[in-house]
Amino acid sequence: MIHRFQPNIYHTSFGSHRPVLNIANGDTVITSTVDNQGRNAFDKQVTTGPNPLTGPFYVEDAEPGDTLAVYLDKLWPNRCIGRSSTTIAPNVVDPNYVIKMLTQHPRINAIWKIDLERGIATLSRPITQLGSIKLPLKPMLGCLGVAPRSGQVISSVTSSAHGGNMDYKGFVTGITAYFPVFTPGGLLFMGDGHATQGDGEIVGTGIETSFDLQFTVKLFKGKTINWPRAENEEYIFTVGNARPLIQALQHATTEMIRWIQKDFGLDARATHLLLGQCLEYDVGNVFDPAYTMVCMLKKKWIPSLR
Amino acid sequence: MIHRFQPNIYHTSFGSHRPVLNIANGDTVITSTVDNQGRNAFDKQVTTGPNPLTGPFYVEDAEPGDTLAVYLDKLWPNRCIGRSSTTIAPNVVDPNYVIKMLTQHPRINAIWKIDLERGIATLSRPITQLGSIKLPLKPMLGCLGVAPRSGQVISSVTSSAHGGNMDYKGFVTGITAYFPVFTPGGLLFMGDGHATQGDGEIVGTGIETSFDLQFTVKLFKGKTINWPRAENEEYIFTVGNARPLIQALQHATTEMIRWIQKDFGLDARATHLLLGQCLEYDVGNVFDPAYTMVCMLKKKWIPSLR
Amino acid sequence: MIHRFQPNIYHTSFGSHRPVLNIANGDTVITSTVDNQGRNAFDKQVTTGPNPLTGPFYVEDAEPGDTLAVYLDKLWPNRCIGRSSTTIAPNVVDPNYVIKMLTQHPRINAIWKIDLERGIATLSRPITQLGSIKLPLKPMLGCLGVAPRSGQVISSVTSSAHGGNMDYKGFVTGITAYFPVFTPGGLLFMGDGHATQGDGEIVGTGIETSFDLQFTVKLFKGKTINWPRAENEEYIFTVGNARPLIQALQHATTEMIRWIQKDFGLDARATHLLLGQCLEYDVGNVFDPAYTMVCMLKKKWIPSLR
Amino acid sequence: MIHRFQPNIYHTSFGSHRPVLNIANGDTVITSTVDNQGRNAFDKQVTTGPNPLTGPFYVEDAEPGDTLAVYLDKLWPNRCIGRSSTTIAPNVVDPNYVIKMLTQHPRINAIWKIDLERGIATLSRPITQLGSIKLPLKPMLGCLGVAPRSGQVISSVTSSAHGGNMDYKGFVTGITAYFPVFTPGGLLFMGDGHATQGDGEIVGTGIETSFDLQFTVKLFKGKTINWPRAENEEYIFTVGNARPLIQALQHATTEMIRWIQKDFGLDARATHLLLGQCLEYDVGNVFDPAYTMVCMLKKKWIPSLR
Repeated sequence: MIHRFQPNIYHTSFGSHRPVLNIANGDTVITSTVDNQGRNAFDKQVTTGPNPLTGPFYVEDAEPGDTLAVYLDKLWPNRCIGRSSTTIAPNVVDPNYVIKMLTQHPRINAIWKIDLERGIATLSRPITQLGSIKLPLKPMLGCLGVAPRSGQVISSVTSSAHGGNMDYKGFVTGITAYFPVFTPGGLLFMGDGHATQGDGEIVGTGIETSFDLQFTVKLFKGKTINWPRAENEEYIFTVGNARPLIQALQHATTEMIRWIQKDFGLDARATHLLLGQCLEYDVGNVFDPAYTMVCMLKKKWIPSLR
Repeated sequence: MIHRFQPNIYHTSFGSHRPVLNIANGDTVITSTVDNQGRNAFDKQVTTGPNPLTGPFYVEDAEPGDTLAVYLDKLWPNRCIGRSSTTIAPNVVDPNYVIKMLTQHPRINAIWKIDLERGIATLSRPITQLGSIKLPLKPMLGCLGVAPRSGQVISSVTSSAHGGNMDYKGFVTGITAYFPVFTPGGLLFMGDGHATQGDGEIVGTGIETSFDLQFTVKLFKGKTINWPRAENEEYIFTVGNARPLIQALQHATTEMIRWIQKDFGLDARATHLLLGQCLEYDVGNVFDPAYTMVCMLKKKWIPSLR
Repeated sequence: MIHRFQPNIYHTSFGSHRPVLNIANGDTVITSTVDNQGRNAFDKQVTTGPNPLTGPFYVEDAEPGDTLAVYLDKLWPNRCIGRSSTTIAPNVVDPNYVIKMLTQHPRINAIWKIDLERGIATLSRPITQLGSIKLPLKPMLGCLGVAPRSGQVISSVTSSAHGGNMDYKGFVTGITAYFPVFTPGGLLFMGDGHATQGDGEIVGTGIETSFDLQFTVKLFKGKTINWPRAENEEYIFTVGNARPLIQALQHATTEMIRWIQKDFGLDARATHLLLGQCLEYDVGNVFDPAYTMVCMLKKKWIPSLR
Repeated sequence: MIHRFQPNIYHTSFGSHRPVLNIANGDTVITSTVDNQGRNAFDKQVTTGPNPLTGPFYVEDAEPGDTLAVYLDKLWPNRCIGRSSTTIAPNVVDPNYVIKMLTQHPRINAIWKIDLERGIATLSRPITQLGSIKLPLKPMLGCLGVAPRSGQVISSVTSSAHGGNMDYKGFVTGITAYFPVFTPGGLLFMGDGHATQGDGEIVGTGIETSFDLQFTVKLFKGKTINWPRAENEEYIFTVGNARPLIQALQHATTEMIRWIQKDFGLDARATHLLLGQCLEYDVGNVFDPAYTMVCMLKKKWIPSLR
């Protein structure tokens, strides 16, 4: 079944809020997200930030201990303006360098013109030595996840085992994301679309804009995972969200080991041997309270997938 | 001038050891490295590990405050056998998972057959579910650097501002690496060649083997850098070596900001705006005492390089 | 006004749960807490853990931006049995040591006999080389805090700016704790009493028991603080709750600087000069998701308090 | 045998430098140290900093795998002037607070008058709201240690398993410090005396001054330790030096577990049970490249010492 859902309420936290729509295993939803500050497709402020989320979507039969798959069928900006910060966060530079950096320029937003047909974002202002630099669109969701464990309600500026504000460039059209279900219905949320974004989201924003998106859910009953997972044609990947950064990496690596051993039938030695020479890491958000590290493996290295 | 240098002494630390060869600005050296345990091209133990280094090469006129460029003209395994560990390090998995992981199998080495013509490493043993998995060769130097600041002598198992054991997959044929000169002559060292390696070197080894290599040095008098830098056709990149992991990222990011502002003429606002949407991160060694993070920027995004 | 409040509902999170009692500025409450697993003064399980909290108490007129003071008039175990874990957490030992440590003995609880008159806890079992070791009671609250910012609901096993599970030995009879008010009424919670506890709570428990306690609230309208603060006769102290550990220390140190400059009239130079030679640090919880560091200064060093 | 040794050469690193004096097991040395900038008892600059060290003292028969005990018989300032920094380091405050902090005042040194008879340091200048604040002297050594493992030479501004610049307030008259011997003769160094110091040395200095000191060495042949240890009348303590801060804590905690199990005959369960409720932590240097955490246990809690 395909649902067309026009949101009119937004949450700035992941938690057991009242569902906006009930959907079933296999259903598809066509909906939209506002930008990080609550502006919609007409660049009109319809809610307040930070990171207002569309949802939650209640997935029938989803229960704690299950895994919820979300196929990102399509996500794309739905307006022609995007904004980005122009100030690198102090926590990603040397403590001794912060003073030099922050006194150099006041905080303002950059404005980007988004050309949806050609797939390009062009810098409009401020006027800098970059001129009208053009970047290719790589639309991604900064926020994606479910209600957290133990009835917690967690702000949409951070992340944990439930997903959240991971700001990872890999959450794009065509991937399937997997989340652990912690509460009945799972309660799926999404938001904070970026037309493109540098690794780490070190200025605290991508090119922030509103999105149209379509997704399809699938429920894996009784399958339990510990951290968000995802896959595309080429890769499987696992996501760790924590601070310090090494802990995010530890969560992602551990989840990858579990995945390979449990689902793809490799024993411990084969798993270690393989990951040692073939694993890849990507860096998600290093701006927010929790950091995000992604552990990746090409499917072609997994014997049972070849 | 081209020097052919056959090493017969190796060091397991970066420091002011007696130079093995004096070379001049612009000179090329053709030499070799032994593997991480001190085995040479005939797989014969000629020195002891860990990570015995070829060098130091004394670069005439190099003085503290200069920058030493090292062009990696060519590096390639010079034998047909490689070895890798089969045990993931406890510091890259969840503390609570260590107990499960380490009790599963004893530590042994895997043996790989290196086909130099076809550029492939094939797993010989142990016999696992991976069978005779074949990986493409991506020969890289695990250790590369100069004598450290303040007359220190630092083990070749770790890294810092002088380079060292960074285990970064980007130190391959065709790149130019830049190091700060801390001591007269700079004192260049290299070693720990890997036929290929996964991100992070999480088992503590790549596919370890001996290398033939050719490099050319160039001296930039009076140009001072703070951390290792490098470039290839497509990217410039900076390297931070420290623990915790976020500090390595901070060093790399700060060095990238300095580079862009000083050498490519962008002011602070343009630098932040650009890096926010275009910067990329890579993960080097997360096994050794110090961790390595790499900050990258495509040259095409830098106005003065277009 | 003095309220005698017998709890019959407990929460395992800090958040905007329905208040159990409304109290006014200056009111005193006499109440009790169950132990970390939900056992009451009769060692009877009356609710489920982890760390069930008494509260929330709604303080009239408390609004976001105010500060809520909690005087701990008296807290004392109300039963004769306490329990502690006998397994050190893997995250407080070297990653390489975890395997040695965890294979040495199964996880069991130790039982302590609490002598309320003599103020002593005596080990009852297991039988170990420690025999019937006797420790002096130093009753403290492991959990103390208010509803978190932004409508979040945060588990009682962790901590942040709202307080929470800080497991700090300094939250004892006679201290005054200060919390930022994030939500109307502040919503005060407490629980997880320990008859005594080692620094860091490295086994994940103190000697866990149920408590009787009496506290008095005072509201500071319009006074805004960023992190929990406290004071006793001798010291003022600030509390940072975060991971990594250095970040907890950073929060606590920064809050101490703010406190001294704003409330005690020292300028920046005097503040730095003084703290450099007189500041002290204490270590709270290093077991839970967030770590706790405490920054302390003797009142006698503050000119305006002498 | 008692040696009176007047240093005339100083090192700014711990390493295999040429010994200044050979001493035997049981010998006592009476000597002196210059301050962190190389000024002697007459406040005359006799060498350059940072942290010039007296030594190394070669202890006959000391070999790798042994433990070297250093009894600090007496250490005391030998002049009437001390200096301290007045600027808190950016790495101990919130990254977002650094900008506020550092713009507030220029970096200058404070001058203290040291009254050796009354044991008091009095602030002379700058003139601040602190007036002529008087602090009790608690003379301690900021630097203490031996030559590091693997022939390394490590700067005297940092620390590791060999000791080094730990800036811990516990290295005072009357304690016995234990260091692992990594190189023949052990090669003992000391320096960086502080008339007093706040926890963490967060301004990068204590009240820096020159010292007279007397120490006695004792060699434990074949006894191997992993990290510095120490004891006084009341406590045994272990020292971890590393970054991040939690790793310093992990090293110290692990070394305490080893100590208790190996030397005091407690099995794993008794050790965990005891440390869980009785361990204490102290914070050493959180300013320098490596941080220092100290793990302490009162001797009265150890059955075999009662």
